Amino acid sequence: MAIIVHKYGGTSMGSPERIKNVARRVAKWHRAGHQMLVVVSAMSGETNRLLALAKEISPNPSPRELDVIASTGEQVSMGLLALALHELGVDAISFNGSQVAVHTDSSHTKARIESIDGERIHSELDAGKVVIVAGFQGRDADGNVTTLGRGGSDTSAVALAVAVGAQECLIFTDVDGVYTTDPRIEPRAARLDAISFEEMLELASLGSKVLQIRSVEFAGKYRMPMRVLSSLTDPDLPVEEEAVSGTLISFEDDPNMEKALVSGIACTRDEAKITLAQVPDTPGVAYKILGPIAEANIDVDMIVQNVSHAGTTDFTFTVAKGDLTRALLVLEKDVVPVVKAKEVATSTEIAKVSCVGIGMRTHANVAARIFNALAKEGINIQMIGTSEIKVSLVIEDKYMELAVRALHQAFGLNKE
Amino acid sequence: MAIIVHKYGGTSMGSPERIKNVARRVAKWHRAGHQMLVVVSAMSGETNRLLALAKEISPNPSPRELDVIASTGEQVSMGLLALALHELGVDAISFNGSQVAVHTDSSHTKARIESIDGERIHSELDAGKVVIVAGFQGRDADGNVTTLGRGGSDTSAVALAVAVGAQECLIFTDVDGVYTTDPRIEPRAARLDAISFEEMLELASLGSKVLQIRSVEFAGKYRMPMRVLSSLTDPDLPVEEEAVSGTLISFEDDPNMEKALVSGIACTRDEAKITLAQVPDTPGVAYKILGPIAEANIDVDMIVQNVSHAGTTDFTFTVAKGDLTRALLVLEKDVVPVVKAKEVATSTEIAKVSCVGIGMRTHANVAARIFNALAKEGINIQMIGTSEIKVSLVIEDKYMELAVRALHQAFGLNKE
Repeated sequence: MAIIVHKYGGTSMGSPERIKNVARRVAKWHRAGHQMLVVVSAMSGETNRLLALAKEISPNPSPRELDVIASTGEQVSMGLLALALHELGVDAISFNGSQVAVHTDSSHTKARIESIDGERIHSELDAGKVVIVAGFQGRDADGNVTTLGRGGSDTSAVALAVAVGAQECLIFTDVDGVYTTDPRIEPRAARLDAISFEEMLELASLGSKVLQIRSVEFAGKYRMPMRVLSSLTDPDLPVEEEAVSGTLISFEDDPNMEKALVSGIACTRDEAKITLAQVPDTPGVAYKILGPIAEANIDVDMIVQNVSHAGTTDFTFTVAKGDLTRALLVLEKDVVPVVKAKEVATSTEIAKVSCVGIGMRTHANVAARIFNALAKEGINIQMIGTSEIKVSLVIEDKYMELAVRALHQAFGLNKE
Repeated sequence: MAIIVHKYGGTSMGSPERIKNVARRVAKWHRAGHQMLVVVSAMSGETNRLLALAKEISPNPSPRELDVIASTGEQVSMGLLALALHELGVDAISFNGSQVAVHTDSSHTKARIESIDGERIHSELDAGKVVIVAGFQGRDADGNVTTLGRGGSDTSAVALAVAVGAQECLIFTDVDGVYTTDPRIEPRAARLDAISFEEMLELASLGSKVLQIRSVEFAGKYRMPMRVLSSLTDPDLPVEEEAVSGTLISFEDDPNMEKALVSGIACTRDEAKITLAQVPDTPGVAYKILGPIAEANIDVDMIVQNVSHAGTTDFTFTVAKGDLTRALLVLEKDVVPVVKAKEVATSTEIAKVSCVGIGMRTHANVAARIFNALAKEGINIQMIGTSEIKVSLVIEDKYMELAVRALHQAFGLNKE
């Protein structure tokens, strides 16, 4: 009998009524003959309520104690779902992260899963029970409660799926799948029936908020098929129908998968651009600039350095808007005096638009088609970055929606 | 360095502001050179909120899952108190019942503590930390979360005090000690500086709501001194003053303890009386009556059987009012047909008043003084029960307050 993992987020678990709906859905899969492992988030609003309580007491709370407090949200959820399943006559049992030995490192509030002991879960599944596990949490080697950070329940679900050898990990959420682009920007965006892990990874990290990026990394590493699907459909939808709904995140080498040139267009306004003008073009300059930035724990996304003129070059990179002030402080203190940059210029009025597709690997003309599409709209490109399956462009932020629509059209993604 | 245990209930932990006050109090004791172990309840209202959520999903929820849900209340409290102590510059760490190995049996929602491993607590105390432990909860042999039932945090505190070899267990609450009787009934009730365990046990079980009876039993078994004191006083009260405030629950053979004839008067309206009239006075009749009652898990309190007339006798006992209907069903079905009682009469309009005092052991005239005091007020006595250190009387309920005041006066308990 195959083990299926379901994951339900805070919105799906948001009220007793919704929890009862989740129970109906899980019971349906259980009755259809699957061994069911369900991972749940805290009821929506609960984690914020708990963190607000903590902040009221301490403006700068200890991460260890924050985890103690925040982890209770999922524990309440899991117990409530067990009760809702009992009401439907389904035998169910709930476990928190400590109880099923979700071992993590000790990085409180952003811990990483190191191992999971699936034994207890297996024995309860084999006894015919639905097993419910609190997402988002684990325990470190000293038995301290840890949490994986916001959105970590997706990662919990995949890690548990891997640990018990599940057939598929279904992430139920408030959207019905992964789209070719954000439907609020392009109404003709189409839901993808399937997408490769690598594409999903690029899309997740590029501002598609559907899945937490770490969960996709984890799934890719262990080749665990994931599916994103809606928890807002009729809970009594036949299992055969639900099982093929949403978007399957599958393996690149799946022979059934059509290799689209571009599978999706992602976009974000969350970044800011920093340019160090006229830095000497000598070996090691990039490290001298980005070393101190990395030490300050600031993530750099795109980096562009062009050919030099008269021995100097312009060095441009992007950081999250929220890190801009800190980045500038670091540059002023530790970088500018060292690399002797003439000027530091910044812009927050930028947007990043990315085209992602496995098909790019074997097709050379993708970049040309992108540039052509944007040129036709009169959109100037400020920065270009590429990877094997992605082309990212930084443009002026007011053109973001226009660029997304133009690219969506250019790569034939509009739904018929 | 002596270990001191503090226990704070739901009212004391009822808001972020109050939690900060608790932290100030604990920090003060810590600074005074004590190793501090603090046991906390859930914030007031929180356990009820959680249980209401559970009931909304399931009218008859599984005890295991109820424990999973309810135990989160204390976990939030303990984390918040740790944060409040950090704000005061005090190193503090919190643990739930599983983490410090509070092992219980598997009776969910009313588990009993079997053992506690004090090792982790000792090592944190020795590192100079204040250790905070969630009251009310533990884990069973299979790692399931258990709770001790309502009020169980007192028991947790005493059990932890015993496990770590504490010097004293201080129960901070919203009253400032144990009184000679309920001050709402007799305004001249006086706070006792000290009371023996046995007396406290009788008073706790007789309707004095100050301490949970199981905590007193536990303290008595392991001879752990307890003190009941107020959490509503100024948190900056000097430690030397606070350390001798409230009521000490001490050992009977403490030579410093004055052996009052009667230490306190307890009273309750929570019981109902059942009389089986004219049952044959043959051996085994009491068992035939109370056996089926016990099997139905109904606790019987007072039992009276008088001498027989013409081969029959009247058999009277009291049960909690909430159990009356169930008791009558059992009697009708399994008892009356067997013992051939002529009639079953009940009354809910009764009160039980009890005089408790170690001094009774060596003084014979206590009962006489009780009867005299009540006779002077024209109060008729319906049932009498005695133990070594207690005399209990069932009277018509409307006389309860009058009887309490009369007895309080008769035994010289009125404060000057």
